[in-house]
Amino acid sequence: MSPQPLKIVVIGGSAAGPKAAAKARRLDEHAAITIIQQEPDLSMASCGYHYYVGGVFDDRNLLICTPAGIVRDPTFFEKAKGIEALVETQALAIDRTAKTVTCKHLPSGTTRILPYDKLVIATGASTLYPPVPGVTLDGVLSLHSLADADALRAVRDAKQVRTAVVVGGGLIGFEVCEALHLAGIQTTVIEKTAAILPFLDPELAKLVENYVRTHGADIITGNGVAAFLGTDGTLTGVKLDNGTELPCELAVVAVGVKPNVALAASAGLAIGALGGIEVNDWMQTSDPDIYAGGDCVECTSLITGQKVLAPYGDLANLQGRVIGQNLIHAGAARFPGVTHTGICKIFDYTVGFTGLSAEQARAAGLTDIETVTVAGLDIPGFMNGKLLISKMVAQRQTGRVLGLQCIGPGDVSKRVATVAMAIRGRLTIDDLANADLPYAPPYSLALDHVIVCAHVMENKLLGRMPGICAAEVKQRLATGADCFILDTRTPREFETMRLGIGETLIPQGALRARLNELPQNKDREIIVYCAISLRGYECAAILQGHGWRNVKVMEGGVAAWPYPRER
Amino acid sequence: MSPQPLKIVVIGGSAAGPKAAAKARRLDEHAAITIIQQEPDLSMASCGYHYYVGGVFDDRNLLICTPAGIVRDPTFFEKAKGIEALVETQALAIDRTAKTVTCKHLPSGTTRILPYDKLVIATGASTLYPPVPGVTLDGVLSLHSLADADALRAVRDAKQVRTAVVVGGGLIGFEVCEALHLAGIQTTVIEKTAAILPFLDPELAKLVENYVRTHGADIITGNGVAAFLGTDGTLTGVKLDNGTELPCELAVVAVGVKPNVALAASAGLAIGALGGIEVNDWMQTSDPDIYAGGDCVECTSLITGQKVLAPYGDLANLQGRVIGQNLIHAGAARFPGVTHTGICKIFDYTVGFTGLSAEQARAAGLTDIETVTVAGLDIPGFMNGKLLISKMVAQRQTGRVLGLQCIGPGDVSKRVATVAMAIRGRLTIDDLANADLPYAPPYSLALDHVIVCAHVMENKLLGRMPGICAAEVKQRLATGADCFILDTRTPREFETMRLGIGETLIPQGALRARLNELPQNKDREIIVYCAISLRGYECAAILQGHGWRNVKVMEGGVAAWPYPRER
Repeated sequence: MSPQPLKIVVIGGSAAGPKAAAKARRLDEHAAITIIQQEPDLSMASCGYHYYVGGVFDDRNLLICTPAGIVRDPTFFEKAKGIEALVETQALAIDRTAKTVTCKHLPSGTTRILPYDKLVIATGASTLYPPVPGVTLDGVLSLHSLADADALRAVRDAKQVRTAVVVGGGLIGFEVCEALHLAGIQTTVIEKTAAILPFLDPELAKLVENYVRTHGADIITGNGVAAFLGTDGTLTGVKLDNGTELPCELAVVAVGVKPNVALAASAGLAIGALGGIEVNDWMQTSDPDIYAGGDCVECTSLITGQKVLAPYGDLANLQGRVIGQNLIHAGAARFPGVTHTGICKIFDYTVGFTGLSAEQARAAGLTDIETVTVAGLDIPGFMNGKLLISKMVAQRQTGRVLGLQCIGPGDVSKRVATVAMAIRGRLTIDDLANADLPYAPPYSLALDHVIVCAHVMENKLLGRMPGICAAEVKQRLATGADCFILDTRTPREFETMRLGIGETLIPQGALRARLNELPQNKDREIIVYCAISLRGYECAAILQGHGWRNVKVMEGGVAAWPYPRER
Repeated sequence: MSPQPLKIVVIGGSAAGPKAAAKARRLDEHAAITIIQQEPDLSMASCGYHYYVGGVFDDRNLLICTPAGIVRDPTFFEKAKGIEALVETQALAIDRTAKTVTCKHLPSGTTRILPYDKLVIATGASTLYPPVPGVTLDGVLSLHSLADADALRAVRDAKQVRTAVVVGGGLIGFEVCEALHLAGIQTTVIEKTAAILPFLDPELAKLVENYVRTHGADIITGNGVAAFLGTDGTLTGVKLDNGTELPCELAVVAVGVKPNVALAASAGLAIGALGGIEVNDWMQTSDPDIYAGGDCVECTSLITGQKVLAPYGDLANLQGRVIGQNLIHAGAARFPGVTHTGICKIFDYTVGFTGLSAEQARAAGLTDIETVTVAGLDIPGFMNGKLLISKMVAQRQTGRVLGLQCIGPGDVSKRVATVAMAIRGRLTIDDLANADLPYAPPYSLALDHVIVCAHVMENKLLGRMPGICAAEVKQRLATGADCFILDTRTPREFETMRLGIGETLIPQGALRARLNELPQNKDREIIVYCAISLRGYECAAILQGHGWRNVKVMEGGVAAWPYPRER
């Protein structure tokens, strides 16, 4: 006689839950697997919601279908996966002694008690709402669930809303901004802190801000929402902390999410300091028969070793797969941690990051760091290459790569993926500097952008390139510092675009013949740049070779200058 | 008094040479640096030649300009870089005792003797020509130098040539094929060996072959060129080894290149077994004052430790940069070796690879390997995802990633770059299986294609997925083996496209209810597949769970089937 089949209950039917269930099924055809899902849908492509809202595609089923076009409903789960999926069903309580989960079918109110041998908690996260008046007004929405997506898609299709405010200038905020922009709605993003996109260092965030402003959306920073204003229960505007009122018919809250841990906490499972469920490398909670994964757990940073919240769909799937293996073969698979990687499309820009920004590195207690800002094309100009602006962070002593932020109209995604893998491998700048990457003109420059970043970083680490970032130059200007500013581009480039910060133009090719035009005090600070600061770097070397002792290259050149310029 | 400036002579003005010279200049403003270049141009973007030939852009200057639009001629080198560039000048001899290079200005015949402290040899490679009659006929060209590009561009612009043969089905051959196709010339690629693109395993090469054939070019394999045929000194056709005559007005030879080592060999420098100049990790030849880099040297494989020829433009630049540093600070920089990475656009397909194919791994003596073939989309279907077909190779015992071949209309380049970095970091399948890559629908599936490759590989390594490749299935069919073939797609998919190899259709969702339709002999071999073989894998698990002991998943499913099919 066969042994009793293993009873597995999975709470949560979005990403980590179904993945754990499906993986467990593939490893044990006879386990009894049940998914409890509060929403009516299962395995939703939640990262695609804003493209549905924006009208990139119209068939809602695409969000809940397999690639073969089969809707992932309970029948699909039963037939294809042999998994019982209870939708519109809420898990009410976990009894760890009896090893049962009590759940309620919401439409009927019927309660069931499900016994388990192994339990998975994948309860996800919920939208945070700012604690201000008016948050329940009609017209205040979020974009977290498929129901939210339906509501916002209905707004788009009704074509009544002309003006919207997005509350929150993080990744989700700009995804919503993208969706509303695609839907033809005039959008203002408001961000409480001084800069948008907190995973970017401020000067890169500023460049994105400039781009978004010139491409159809407005941004207000340093100003949170004080109240949602309304008439007869319906939103009419948003009032900011500084008293400004922005009239709008729609406000979408996107200030972040918090892990859903109430059920786990009630069951006495350990909750971490960041508010997520504590799990070990095997995604096991403080109860060895209960696993947890997805947006409701805390992860470990592979860079700092510290706990972090990383509510991303890809990680939820990876964690679900690890859990599925451990459900059937305890200890079979580990989830080692995260490298903090993310990406977002904002109009024709991509904003991506992996690892730590300089600010995040310092906040994590890493002080021995070096940074470089590099601008350049993704592929050759003759193939219509597009701009990339990156900031790379490395550990000074070891040369270890700690992070890359990359923005621009160029192919950001490839560069972020490449460096994410380098960070995973704990590679150094030296490894990156000689990387053997796929090169052909449709795909890369002869020296790919990430290799150039590594070269510039190496030059800085070896003391060959004295860099200065745009923010520091701006600071020099603000304090009236006595520095000589040298633009080394061609007269034609200078006519088309220039900073107008008191610079002198001496094209690179003329520099050696015009050294007499430079400060004769060889200790005076000279700040040199060009379009992207490659020529700037070469010119700095020329000046140093001729005895100037205080030359600095403004990193990223004109391309990375985030402040107003003369033309 | 200043010390005597360092005298540096660089032979070769294409990639490695100018890069070495420029890097040396940046580290020493006072060195006397001279480049000897046989051709009239300098620092040509040679990998862009075929796009110029094909008419992707018309301004030839783009091939020899800086991004700021300045032509990299001797004046530019003098003014911007402080480097003397002697063009149309041939290096005749190196006297290592006197430390001089004798060179001749070709137009005038004037000879000069240049003394050096440090010498760089970057003499590149030359096109190999098959040793057959007619190779000097008008109309037999190659695409290696800018002069070749000019000649082929003239052919395009004259619009007289309608039919061309490309001799050689490797990377260069298909780049030429792409160029001629863009130029509107009907092209046949002929390849002496059984399969095109030798860096791919045969079944992937076959998929590319199928694609190219249905998109406007012809391919003949297993048949080399026996003679170029002509009338009055002008090409009229190509005769193949099997006697077939292909009429054509143009033949482009692209069977490969050989390192230019005559000068180095005459000077008594060590030449390796593969015919390239021997260099150590510092790119130093057997004479410590002479460095060499680019297509004329042998490199070390980071995977096998063996010597390889790797004539790629990106590596030449990297090596030039290493040399430039060592010229000024001996021992400052190392070039660790190559991971064998390349990429090529063929019409709307991309063909990329990094590391070793299964055949290359075996040829290098690595027998303990496992492979997987995986098909899937690059981004979600609702974002118009495109197909990628990959074959990954790993070391069985250690799980170390050894290679990825990736082809298809999807974003191949990103996946190859990602895995190239993983190989550089000596990462394992386990590392890749939990990689934290940038995920958003415009850029990736929730589980990126390379992660899925790692998952399938892991399943094979752990014995969870018994895979069989299309070639083996074909072999089974050819020998009349008694296997049961199961297609697990939907009836609609089956109507649209099917193999017609005796398969039975049982959709995944119906399988558990129709197990009685399967062979009752549970040791009989069952081969199962779907569109890409994800459902196939799940169905195999179902069958194994119900006692079938000889179930195999046909990897990559219908998408990776390279043979004729019923519809």
